[in-house]
Amino acid sequence: MARDGAERPAAEVSIDLRSDTVTRPGAEMRAAMAAAPVGDDVYGEDPTVSALEEETAELLGLEAGLFCPTGSMANMLGIAALTPAGTEVLAESRAHILRAESGGHGALAGITSRTWRSDGGVFRAADALDMLSPPGSPMLVPTATVSVENTHNFWGGTVADLAELRELRAATARQGVAVHLDGARLANAWTAAGVAPSVYGEVADTISICLSKGLGAPVGSVLAGSAETIAAARTLRKRYGGGMRQAGIIAAGGLFALRHNADRLADDHAHARLIAEAIASAAPGAVDPAAVATNIVVVELGQRWSAGGAQAFARDAERHGVRVSVLGPHTVRLVTHLDVSREQAQYAAEALAGLAAR
Amino acid sequence: MARDGAERPAAEVSIDLRSDTVTRPGAEMRAAMAAAPVGDDVYGEDPTVSALEEETAELLGLEAGLFCPTGSMANMLGIAALTPAGTEVLAESRAHILRAESGGHGALAGITSRTWRSDGGVFRAADALDMLSPPGSPMLVPTATVSVENTHNFWGGTVADLAELRELRAATARQGVAVHLDGARLANAWTAAGVAPSVYGEVADTISICLSKGLGAPVGSVLAGSAETIAAARTLRKRYGGGMRQAGIIAAGGLFALRHNADRLADDHAHARLIAEAIASAAPGAVDPAAVATNIVVVELGQRWSAGGAQAFARDAERHGVRVSVLGPHTVRLVTHLDVSREQAQYAAEALAGLAAR
Amino acid sequence: MARDGAERPAAEVSIDLRSDTVTRPGAEMRAAMAAAPVGDDVYGEDPTVSALEEETAELLGLEAGLFCPTGSMANMLGIAALTPAGTEVLAESRAHILRAESGGHGALAGITSRTWRSDGGVFRAADALDMLSPPGSPMLVPTATVSVENTHNFWGGTVADLAELRELRAATARQGVAVHLDGARLANAWTAAGVAPSVYGEVADTISICLSKGLGAPVGSVLAGSAETIAAARTLRKRYGGGMRQAGIIAAGGLFALRHNADRLADDHAHARLIAEAIASAAPGAVDPAAVATNIVVVELGQRWSAGGAQAFARDAERHGVRVSVLGPHTVRLVTHLDVSREQAQYAAEALAGLAAR
Amino acid sequence: MARDGAERPAAEVSIDLRSDTVTRPGAEMRAAMAAAPVGDDVYGEDPTVSALEEETAELLGLEAGLFCPTGSMANMLGIAALTPAGTEVLAESRAHILRAESGGHGALAGITSRTWRSDGGVFRAADALDMLSPPGSPMLVPTATVSVENTHNFWGGTVADLAELRELRAATARQGVAVHLDGARLANAWTAAGVAPSVYGEVADTISICLSKGLGAPVGSVLAGSAETIAAARTLRKRYGGGMRQAGIIAAGGLFALRHNADRLADDHAHARLIAEAIASAAPGAVDPAAVATNIVVVELGQRWSAGGAQAFARDAERHGVRVSVLGPHTVRLVTHLDVSREQAQYAAEALAGLAAR
Repeated sequence: MARDGAERPAAEVSIDLRSDTVTRPGAEMRAAMAAAPVGDDVYGEDPTVSALEEETAELLGLEAGLFCPTGSMANMLGIAALTPAGTEVLAESRAHILRAESGGHGALAGITSRTWRSDGGVFRAADALDMLSPPGSPMLVPTATVSVENTHNFWGGTVADLAELRELRAATARQGVAVHLDGARLANAWTAAGVAPSVYGEVADTISICLSKGLGAPVGSVLAGSAETIAAARTLRKRYGGGMRQAGIIAAGGLFALRHNADRLADDHAHARLIAEAIASAAPGAVDPAAVATNIVVVELGQRWSAGGAQAFARDAERHGVRVSVLGPHTVRLVTHLDVSREQAQYAAEALAGLAAR
Repeated sequence: MARDGAERPAAEVSIDLRSDTVTRPGAEMRAAMAAAPVGDDVYGEDPTVSALEEETAELLGLEAGLFCPTGSMANMLGIAALTPAGTEVLAESRAHILRAESGGHGALAGITSRTWRSDGGVFRAADALDMLSPPGSPMLVPTATVSVENTHNFWGGTVADLAELRELRAATARQGVAVHLDGARLANAWTAAGVAPSVYGEVADTISICLSKGLGAPVGSVLAGSAETIAAARTLRKRYGGGMRQAGIIAAGGLFALRHNADRLADDHAHARLIAEAIASAAPGAVDPAAVATNIVVVELGQRWSAGGAQAFARDAERHGVRVSVLGPHTVRLVTHLDVSREQAQYAAEALAGLAAR
Repeated sequence: MARDGAERPAAEVSIDLRSDTVTRPGAEMRAAMAAAPVGDDVYGEDPTVSALEEETAELLGLEAGLFCPTGSMANMLGIAALTPAGTEVLAESRAHILRAESGGHGALAGITSRTWRSDGGVFRAADALDMLSPPGSPMLVPTATVSVENTHNFWGGTVADLAELRELRAATARQGVAVHLDGARLANAWTAAGVAPSVYGEVADTISICLSKGLGAPVGSVLAGSAETIAAARTLRKRYGGGMRQAGIIAAGGLFALRHNADRLADDHAHARLIAEAIASAAPGAVDPAAVATNIVVVELGQRWSAGGAQAFARDAERHGVRVSVLGPHTVRLVTHLDVSREQAQYAAEALAGLAAR
Repeated sequence: MARDGAERPAAEVSIDLRSDTVTRPGAEMRAAMAAAPVGDDVYGEDPTVSALEEETAELLGLEAGLFCPTGSMANMLGIAALTPAGTEVLAESRAHILRAESGGHGALAGITSRTWRSDGGVFRAADALDMLSPPGSPMLVPTATVSVENTHNFWGGTVADLAELRELRAATARQGVAVHLDGARLANAWTAAGVAPSVYGEVADTISICLSKGLGAPVGSVLAGSAETIAAARTLRKRYGGGMRQAGIIAAGGLFALRHNADRLADDHAHARLIAEAIASAAPGAVDPAAVATNIVVVELGQRWSAGGAQAFARDAERHGVRVSVLGPHTVRLVTHLDVSREQAQYAAEALAGLAAR
């Protein structure tokens, strides 16, 4: 490993930075799942699912929750419950709902969309409000919902400023437009912002939060909102094929995650910053460590790696025992999580810095 | 309990015959889930999910499998993979896909449908073939797929005759039309018909089989088909929000169910017959025990219960510790399963016969 | 022409019995179109369109009308305005809406459907009511609308009995289910039934009537219904791309057709009967003249023409100057209309009888 | 009219600048429609429709054409033929397809969309290319189509630079992405740009061109593209309810418009400029006459009219015999066309300048 400036600990090293979705449940979480009381949740009789839904809703300052098999479904149901087919949702140009959810919002929910372009993933309410087409005009497609992603995945885990979210909420509410918060990584956001999770319920009609990303549960997301909206989403969940039976088994993993794994996310953020700093030192301009606010590092390899580009970088990284994901021809993404220790983060930082410096 | 001729064992008796979806995992299944090796299945890296998919496909004589959170999704993905939007699926008039899946086949998959009316739920290939509109005419909506439900839920768990399925397969194949088998309770069908599960792969392009009904797993169905069709369904699964992460936890329950609980389904069938015979003796005409081929008993209460109808019957049954489901104003359904012992079946038979005789 | 027993008048004879959609506007209708006052109907400012909409609605005993470019769109908007995506419409197994409208009801409007099978195209309310799944059950797809086609095209122009329509209306209204009347050939129906057009408004929530079939206008259908339903359909029309501008030009043709061509439809019916009788005499069993109630004759060629079947029959007929349409391998359809005179009908009767007798 | 500095010719003056869709056919166009040979276009037998389709396609340098009842349908069919459900179309943030076509692209065609923000409606290929997500990634929604609107309605009739269109075409073609040209006012674009209409066929896969805007026909648009794409769009047209019968009547108006009214569009542009200059003189900053390239003038009223805003301005203008359309709280739009003479334009210029100066 001398070539890359990092001592590779052992042949079997494998540090998976592709995503925080790759975490595997540990012994305690497995025990909680194995012991969970369950029932048929289609009949509303699974106590563990109900507990997860209620606890999540309360945490986020909203009335009710709905357990979903995936974050994509939680986003789809939340937006669909707020946005009739033929009306529009506004979102940022790199929003996960539009770029990475297989086109379901159009293909299944019949929603149309327009996007604003943020400056580096920083959310500004004015960007959304400038585009808004309020309900009421017979000739123009009305904006039903503005969706904000927090943290913003494809912009490197940026955190939305609470003042901007409050401004958005106030202005949209006046015009009869709803707000959906794509909170796949909302726990990262509240950790980084240092705010109470319940404040997000003040700025959004619906919030999706993913249990199987940084929080480390194996399966599932929760959609939270008003009792009425969640009832509508529950009906839609059956249509989309998401109404599971004894889902308490996996909901127990989610509950465990929510109770035990949220507080440690600051570690992931520190690890991400550590990696970003190493790369920035070795390859100036590839990443701005100051912009790494949470657990995602987006690295622009630039021309140095133009031969093989990001694909070659990822292959070389894997040979050093570190897996990364490729976002574009010259762009890779690294995500820290529960299954990456401080030592592993340090090793990865050195290995990747060595590669980036080439 | 003297009034109804049945000795009620104890106050806490609760025999849940509403559906076979209500079964709860036992200790062994829970242990299997807790010990399952897992990975991120969106990246195709969950070994337990893969094992379940492969084992189910092989069992059914097909190439590939796809784990889905629900049977509704497995049916929707199978049919959608075979049936382009704007073309039609043919099914029986009481098909679960049309009556009980929230309209998703039209609302989400954009499929149109026509139905034939069977005689008492008995599948005849000619009924489907008479309606078939083969591909090729520019003016008529082409039939892309015929869907057969086996066993047929809303007709009382009837089993399709294999010769009829073979006839359907041969005739549709000649005309370029696919066959989907809604096998939510296919294990009950093969048990009752005394055939090998793999014969079903000879008569269908896609098969859905539910793990959380008679087989007793907490969550999930598998869709099986050709490698090509399943690849298409896998892509669609992401769009529908069914692409779970470390789903091996619940897939382990499904694997356990498939390996351990299929062979005992004959007991459920015997219990259903026992209940049907008791009711038929007490209330002639309410049910034909000879038509009870699997684990479902549909009881027509007729005028005797016209005052309160099926709703009142269900309430009274619950007071005797037996839960049933209401299918119509004068119709109730009883379903036996893993969590109903022979003793419980006998108790329920007497209790329900007593009520039906009123 | 001796071989077929008909004197072919001249080489250029061409009697087009493929459909009543082939009629061409005559001099008077063209003059009416050329003189029509027009405006931008998207702004509601085309007086001729408005006149057509109002006059049609009044004729059918309903509050409001909506001019549409095609009958398919009129059916789609009427049904969609009554039937939310994810709910179902019930129709006869050969309904034009399901068989011949390109799957739009599923693919675009997201509606699911089930069908009953009539006996020979004769409408019986009980057939529909037996299948009906009333609104209110959370588990079953609710029936939102029953659609009745009158006259019924693919069953040979059969006419629905008014008593059956009234029974349907009464029973569905009690259960909160709507009725759509696919009246593409409703003028043929009221002519044959000898009833006032306005009675149909008593038995349906929405009615589509086609101006370019037997009535002979070049383009368009009108959807009629309550003011509220038509307002909803008008909004949908814009989404489907049917909101034309100075549509008064073609609406004038429709108005002319409605005013001048309805009364002569009895002639078309007599011509159809005449043709059916000639064919029945020459080829017993091919058609039942007594069942030919309006302007459509469906001929079952049977085994005599099994060599080439319906395609060969159609080719041979064309050589005799008569065009027919092919409905199936052994089935052809003949439709009389405005552009077929009594002499032409007689010639066609002899020519086709001669062919059918082979 | 002294108050506003314009001599109002007579009480009955009505100059309709709301849109160029309001034009009414004149005597010659009406005569052409009345004399048009027609047939059933669903069978492909209407010679006038075919002539219009062929002539338009040839004019635009493409293989085939398809007559549609509206521009919205022409856009929807063109984009849908190029863009499978679940994939995305990119467009400008104020694109007519997204803002003014009732959400049909999502609700009916199942397409998802993202938008770029242009600088003042000026098309730059790089804006689109920056957002493009090329086909091939399994995780990201692929861009199937880029749609460019030329002229761009809601940005004031701006004209796309041909070099930018060529750059877009070259770059998208390399990546397997299609280009749709929303040419509702393409004749205005080629007139202003001084290029041959056929050059547009070199930069787009499909082009919609509206016959009932500046060209003055009463009804209809043509979609042009390759023979294969148009065949697919023709099939879709039937599903959307746009397959009209003897449509030659209105196609004749379109043919007349295309042959006689394209050359005079420079007059409309001169009239629009004249109006813009008058307003700019009276109310500096309300409009930049140099940016008025075609027949649309967008006026920003600003604070002077803040009391009643654009609605009050429109009401006052109507009292002076001039109708304008309201685009926003402080924004009105004026559109010149065939039915506005030079004298009327001069009158409108003075009247509106007088109002704007207040």
